[in-house]
Amino acid sequence: MNRIYLDNSATSFPKPQEVLSAMEDYFLNNGSNIQRGETEYNFSAEDKIISLRERLSSLVNSAHPECTVFTPNVTSALNTVIQGYLSEGDEVLISPLEHNALMRVLIERKIKYSIIPADANGKIIPNEISKLITPKTKAVIIQAANNVTGAVQPVHETGKVLREYGLPLIIDSAQALPHIELDMEADNISVLCFTGHKGLLGPQGTGGFIAKPEMIKKIKPLIFGGTGSFSDLLTQPENLPDRFESGTQNIIGLIGLEAALEYLERNKDGIRKKERCIKEYFLNTLLDIQHIKIHSASAEIPIVSLSSKDFDVAELSNYLAANNVQTRVGLHCNVMTHRYIGTYPEGTIRFSFSHYNTKEEADSCINLVKEFLNEKGLL
Amino acid sequence: MNRIYLDNSATSFPKPQEVLSAMEDYFLNNGSNIQRGETEYNFSAEDKIISLRERLSSLVNSAHPECTVFTPNVTSALNTVIQGYLSEGDEVLISPLEHNALMRVLIERKIKYSIIPADANGKIIPNEISKLITPKTKAVIIQAANNVTGAVQPVHETGKVLREYGLPLIIDSAQALPHIELDMEADNISVLCFTGHKGLLGPQGTGGFIAKPEMIKKIKPLIFGGTGSFSDLLTQPENLPDRFESGTQNIIGLIGLEAALEYLERNKDGIRKKERCIKEYFLNTLLDIQHIKIHSASAEIPIVSLSSKDFDVAELSNYLAANNVQTRVGLHCNVMTHRYIGTYPEGTIRFSFSHYNTKEEADSCINLVKEFLNEKGLL
Repeated sequence: MNRIYLDNSATSFPKPQEVLSAMEDYFLNNGSNIQRGETEYNFSAEDKIISLRERLSSLVNSAHPECTVFTPNVTSALNTVIQGYLSEGDEVLISPLEHNALMRVLIERKIKYSIIPADANGKIIPNEISKLITPKTKAVIIQAANNVTGAVQPVHETGKVLREYGLPLIIDSAQALPHIELDMEADNISVLCFTGHKGLLGPQGTGGFIAKPEMIKKIKPLIFGGTGSFSDLLTQPENLPDRFESGTQNIIGLIGLEAALEYLERNKDGIRKKERCIKEYFLNTLLDIQHIKIHSASAEIPIVSLSSKDFDVAELSNYLAANNVQTRVGLHCNVMTHRYIGTYPEGTIRFSFSHYNTKEEADSCINLVKEFLNEKGLL
Repeated sequence: MNRIYLDNSATSFPKPQEVLSAMEDYFLNNGSNIQRGETEYNFSAEDKIISLRERLSSLVNSAHPECTVFTPNVTSALNTVIQGYLSEGDEVLISPLEHNALMRVLIERKIKYSIIPADANGKIIPNEISKLITPKTKAVIIQAANNVTGAVQPVHETGKVLREYGLPLIIDSAQALPHIELDMEADNISVLCFTGHKGLLGPQGTGGFIAKPEMIKKIKPLIFGGTGSFSDLLTQPENLPDRFESGTQNIIGLIGLEAALEYLERNKDGIRKKERCIKEYFLNTLLDIQHIKIHSASAEIPIVSLSSKDFDVAELSNYLAANNVQTRVGLHCNVMTHRYIGTYPEGTIRFSFSHYNTKEEADSCINLVKEFLNEKGLL
């Protein structure tokens, strides 16, 4: 049976051919380091990386590509921002749906957190924020779109509330970009952490954060070392983005991501339309099926999770895998969400789509779900 | 003019075709995440990563692939080990030739260092170590092979001295592997930090450290987050290597590195012979040339640096670049070495070779050096 890939929230597949072509071209015809050499090859690779910073900052309406910092993944970006901006005893406000990428660093670094009141889907109520602010509150940190249910947080309204208090809004956009618009100016976002290998369609090993200039000054680096600049200094240089990018970067990966961003810019509207359409089609077809509970909290994010009182979702996931359909089952590194939506400890089976998925694939997958339920005597 | 690449110590080029083929195959035919899904695709990618841990640990005679941890580069590996093992006020002993990757993290994290006495090339004298040890000394940290002159440190003898004191030896192998043998058991190395994109011939974005089991327990993680394991824990899990590998890893890059290691295993002796041969040929031909000072401190490491009192090495590097020869000029992110060998602040022009370089390339390069000197009226 043909392979059906429905795990795009873990990492997207397939990715555009342009991504591979750009990586191959660099691998075969350039290969050079950046900021460490002054030949046309070094400059050509560097131009791609500068273009990537520009495309990323433009995607979220930042006018500061030099404040676009690369890290190997969004987890490292969150760690850099949190460990570099906050200290033990500081307080932050978070949603009730936060990923382990945030929770583990908060807890390990002894940063206190309060949970902002939210609706049944975990969507926070921005007007509740002001009641929670104390003199120790240093930021609000939220995953803009949830990785289990696709719940989208009210980023714009949250940013508006925070404007009054001069408090930074730190966003984990891992599941949000490019499915929804995030605008650092209009939404009053101080730092936006991103990953390159999910919706942005780049290779793994890419990610980072984009900060406002006044905010990036308040973040201390987490990794120190050679930057190819100010080599005579034994302390970390102050210039951006070098200050945060010690050691040789993942140049081949970033060049792949640059090509992915170029592809996205050309196709953004079409991609969004297709991924929402296929997700809606899948959802609507599921409505006829008994014994499952659907967790899908937004129209924009191509994620559908299922739980059941009547069968083990892990068994369903394995059944689908045996028939060449890839999903992800369990807690999805996000125990808070599963506790909040009542699916702990079993978790859910998650179907996550991209614009490359087809209605035929959705039909095949749902037929297999029905087959499974039939074998269980549930259909 | 054909391109001549002599900057392999910055990043190696070309890399084996097998590396690109493995990355292409993963990109086109797999694409899946690891530890986040249970299909044949997830397991197949995971198998490659496990194989890579085995190949790397085998390369340096470690029996603990689970103590082989990936980081995006060797700088991040050194940062993880140093920040995770040492605290403010701790003391370490280092060579006089250390890279900014080590110096900047020591200084920024207020870890004190003493410099071990060394010979004119900066090669430390292991018998001097015992005099420097205080109750606060927590480790000896050295770059096994220097990135400016190729000076090789007496790792084995250093490890032998430290055995008496039970002090860990932490090695930066960035310029050493696979050009020389490093043996974690015989050399008594507690932690070996490595990079994937230089002599190991893998893509950028890969690196890490290999630790002894008793040592890795003493290292706290620097990055916290989802590991695909123990998702119900809001603290960082203890299992290895997950404890140090939060967030999606650079899977496509690591798969490229795995193919590079397989290539190296098949060709190691031939590669060493060729790279030493081409470097010796280049060196011997240089001996006839006046007005240059040669800095090349070992036969094993394919690095030759040049300085001059009579011309600007940056001008020579630019002249070569204009004729399609890539070198690296300046301080090479290692101000300590340049101060030690008397080439600060101008730095040197560095020629770094791989087994892909030919005698014809060496001849062309030297002819260009002569042309340059001739134009300067120095020949």
